[in-house]
Amino acid sequence: MPEATNNYKKLHEISRQTRILEGIDSLLHWDQETYMPEDAAAIRAEQQKIMAGLVHKGRIAKPFVNALAKLIDIKTGKVLVKGLGSAKNAALKVWRREYLKETALPTQFVEDFAKLTSQSVLVWRSARQENSFRRFAPYLEKIIQMNRKKADLLGYKEHPYDALLDAYEPEMTTKRITPIFSDLKQFLVGLIKKIQQKTQIDDHFLFGKFSESKQMAFSQKILKGMHYDMRRGRLDFSIHPFSSAAHPTDSRITTRIHPSSLLSNVRSVMHEAGHGLYEMGLPINEYGSPLGEHASLGIHESQSRWWETRIGQSLPFWEHYFPILQKEFKEFQKVSLKEFYKASNKVEPTFIRVEADEVTYNLHVILRFEIEKALIEGSLPIKEIPEAWNAKFKELLGLVPSTDAEGCLQDIHWSLGSFGYFPTYTLGNLYAAQFFATFEQAFPKWEKSVAEGELEFIKEWLEKSIFQFGRQYSSFELVEKVSDAPFSSKSFCHYLETKYKDIYRF
Amino acid sequence: MPEATNNYKKLHEISRQTRILEGIDSLLHWDQETYMPEDAAAIRAEQQKIMAGLVHKGRIAKPFVNALAKLIDIKTGKVLVKGLGSAKNAALKVWRREYLKETALPTQFVEDFAKLTSQSVLVWRSARQENSFRRFAPYLEKIIQMNRKKADLLGYKEHPYDALLDAYEPEMTTKRITPIFSDLKQFLVGLIKKIQQKTQIDDHFLFGKFSESKQMAFSQKILKGMHYDMRRGRLDFSIHPFSSAAHPTDSRITTRIHPSSLLSNVRSVMHEAGHGLYEMGLPINEYGSPLGEHASLGIHESQSRWWETRIGQSLPFWEHYFPILQKEFKEFQKVSLKEFYKASNKVEPTFIRVEADEVTYNLHVILRFEIEKALIEGSLPIKEIPEAWNAKFKELLGLVPSTDAEGCLQDIHWSLGSFGYFPTYTLGNLYAAQFFATFEQAFPKWEKSVAEGELEFIKEWLEKSIFQFGRQYSSFELVEKVSDAPFSSKSFCHYLETKYKDIYRF
Repeated sequence: MPEATNNYKKLHEISRQTRILEGIDSLLHWDQETYMPEDAAAIRAEQQKIMAGLVHKGRIAKPFVNALAKLIDIKTGKVLVKGLGSAKNAALKVWRREYLKETALPTQFVEDFAKLTSQSVLVWRSARQENSFRRFAPYLEKIIQMNRKKADLLGYKEHPYDALLDAYEPEMTTKRITPIFSDLKQFLVGLIKKIQQKTQIDDHFLFGKFSESKQMAFSQKILKGMHYDMRRGRLDFSIHPFSSAAHPTDSRITTRIHPSSLLSNVRSVMHEAGHGLYEMGLPINEYGSPLGEHASLGIHESQSRWWETRIGQSLPFWEHYFPILQKEFKEFQKVSLKEFYKASNKVEPTFIRVEADEVTYNLHVILRFEIEKALIEGSLPIKEIPEAWNAKFKELLGLVPSTDAEGCLQDIHWSLGSFGYFPTYTLGNLYAAQFFATFEQAFPKWEKSVAEGELEFIKEWLEKSIFQFGRQYSSFELVEKVSDAPFSSKSFCHYLETKYKDIYRF
Repeated sequence: MPEATNNYKKLHEISRQTRILEGIDSLLHWDQETYMPEDAAAIRAEQQKIMAGLVHKGRIAKPFVNALAKLIDIKTGKVLVKGLGSAKNAALKVWRREYLKETALPTQFVEDFAKLTSQSVLVWRSARQENSFRRFAPYLEKIIQMNRKKADLLGYKEHPYDALLDAYEPEMTTKRITPIFSDLKQFLVGLIKKIQQKTQIDDHFLFGKFSESKQMAFSQKILKGMHYDMRRGRLDFSIHPFSSAAHPTDSRITTRIHPSSLLSNVRSVMHEAGHGLYEMGLPINEYGSPLGEHASLGIHESQSRWWETRIGQSLPFWEHYFPILQKEFKEFQKVSLKEFYKASNKVEPTFIRVEADEVTYNLHVILRFEIEKALIEGSLPIKEIPEAWNAKFKELLGLVPSTDAEGCLQDIHWSLGSFGYFPTYTLGNLYAAQFFATFEQAFPKWEKSVAEGELEFIKEWLEKSIFQFGRQYSSFELVEKVSDAPFSSKSFCHYLETKYKDIYRF
């Protein structure tokens, strides 16, 4: 074996050991949210702290760095060996980037940050309950200061926000996002106006009392149809649905049930299964190398939203599944497929992001992006957040939150110190749309197949087009590679325009 | 704070970190047996190997050894500081013993042993299925050789078997066990003869078809009665019931259900809950030090057998629970309490240890002890095991296994390399009996309370008398301390004689 290949193998093997530790940490988290006895929480926190420490140590350990330094110049990023091929060269660059990020933050800083956010999340909870932004503000102030400091430590070329964004969406920049989000915002505000001029859809039949076991039986059928593999995953309950992948052969998901809302369970199951399929579809031989990792949070979200919205809120999907639903829930025998489809796609501005429909959702995200960017820049003082939030909300969605609890205090993210996370939600929708446009070219008759209950060909297309590359490409490179077009909001806007024109008949 | 106390605290803290890693490993095992997706097995094995390596490293790490060496002379075992008190001094001695054991085996030996046993267990499975001792024999030969080598590496004063026994039952010796088991054997053979001369008990009504959910509901009631704390534990299903304690605030148990055998579930739940209560009752402040650990496997087994047999097969227990059972299972309304009690205590020699009753059970164990002792000594050649087994079986239980599958191939232990484990099963029964004799003195009216459904005072007595000491005393020291009498089989024999005289009327 040539020396370079051999050294690469060694690097992969060392990295794989650390990845296995990360997988154990995932299990600790999964267990905490599903089956852990209540009183185990305190020692569980210690377990997780120890595992996080071991993972960090593994990522900066001498054997790892030495193995890496044989293949790539850590200072300049120049690959030092020939003949590995472009995929492995790309992997080396990712390993290097991540290593630099891992070493950029002093231990003391990381510990202070963890201490601050573990307090902040508690303060946020009571502040939200008491509807008191003032209570949360001093903590948010410190969190923003530390995030600015973090950006400085990590380094950036153009905008401090880039350094934060990079943790979730590697190589994405504020400069790249801003015009795309700006176009999208304009389009969405216009689309909502058009929709609001039309008669609102009646969706009352989606709310009532629906047997939990029947809901689960129905969702299990969908999971089976999606070819979510129960030998490599499982479905459990948790307060907040999530997907937890320890590795491609252990990629679990959770859901919740609202007895009064029929589609809540279906959506969360399809959403999480989308995440799960992505992890299951990553190449197992590359486990532990960047080529076996998801490309970014945004790409991850593109997969969950693909299944939740592009498939799960499409007419052909319900052509197959609505009759099955009607068998389980007799009350739907009086509802037509078309009525059901329209109801499940009702567009209506509301205050809470996580409950928003496909159209208004991204305005919630863009609002947060604009605010957090301004906070990091220092152009928006903390105390003015509620005012800025409400003004933007009025501008974008035509409503003014009556309390901060249903306004700027609604999300946990800032209290956890996560700045730069929000944009990935909208990026996911945009990526999904651009992928979908290519998919439609490959399968012009996809709707017919889906209406017949066929979903496996979709999963296979995603595996071949996206999953197999792991993290070889950055998110927007991957999007451009798959769609053969620059990353933009075009496909997404086109999709929404066409779909909702048909539904609302404007 | 005096320096010694301070150094002790540091030692405890370092040790606690390693204990936390062990707890994570416990969770990996629990998950594997309960909820893990099938295909995750390969990477789970890697996860466990890594965790085992980290635990081993923690146990021999320099900071640990340095902290220990400040307090106790590692070579001689002499405590170097004054004023810690006898409990902490005992803890230091345990830490030192365990450290010496941990370092006694070279890494290569440990790896070779693990490799051999991971193959052997597979060979054993097929050998048992094919009823072919010859197939398993060459592996068993190697396992015995390695166990002899292990004994030499670990060191012993009198008998090589002592070194192996010590891994499960610290400080117990072959010399101490042999006369006790010998007396017990004689007594049991005699007792069985007396029983066999009487009319056999009719227990047909314990077998039939019993709803699984009703069985579980009933077992849950018993768990609640036992004050097994669901905030610090849980009950799940697994193929083989087990208890898995990560720490006193996370002490889970599992069970299985036989739809055709009513008492199988009750017994396994009470058995495992006995283990679980012990772990939950260990002093949480001592978590990570020997004072927060179970004393030995035998003491652990004394707790499971206490609840399974001494309580769960007693008349007063069923005085309270039989009417509850009758409500759930109408078919028992025709059965009297006395008939039910007798049936649940039917004595009958059978081939399989795990299905044996309270009286014959220990003869299965003593047979294994005698054979494995002879194997380690070298006084019994491997190929003669089946013959020796069957001859002993005939002598002790009056039966001859018709196949090795129901004879010497029935247990997994030897294939896993575990020599010295079997005696702990009988030690557990003997310890439980000796503890119970003391308990009866403290609560002469315990039967009345139990018949009224009161069980908490029992748990409290166990906590106060046994759990609170952790591993301060070796098993037999603890037995002697609690009962104020030397460790013997006397209490156990007295218990069986009295109980079965009443049941079989001899």
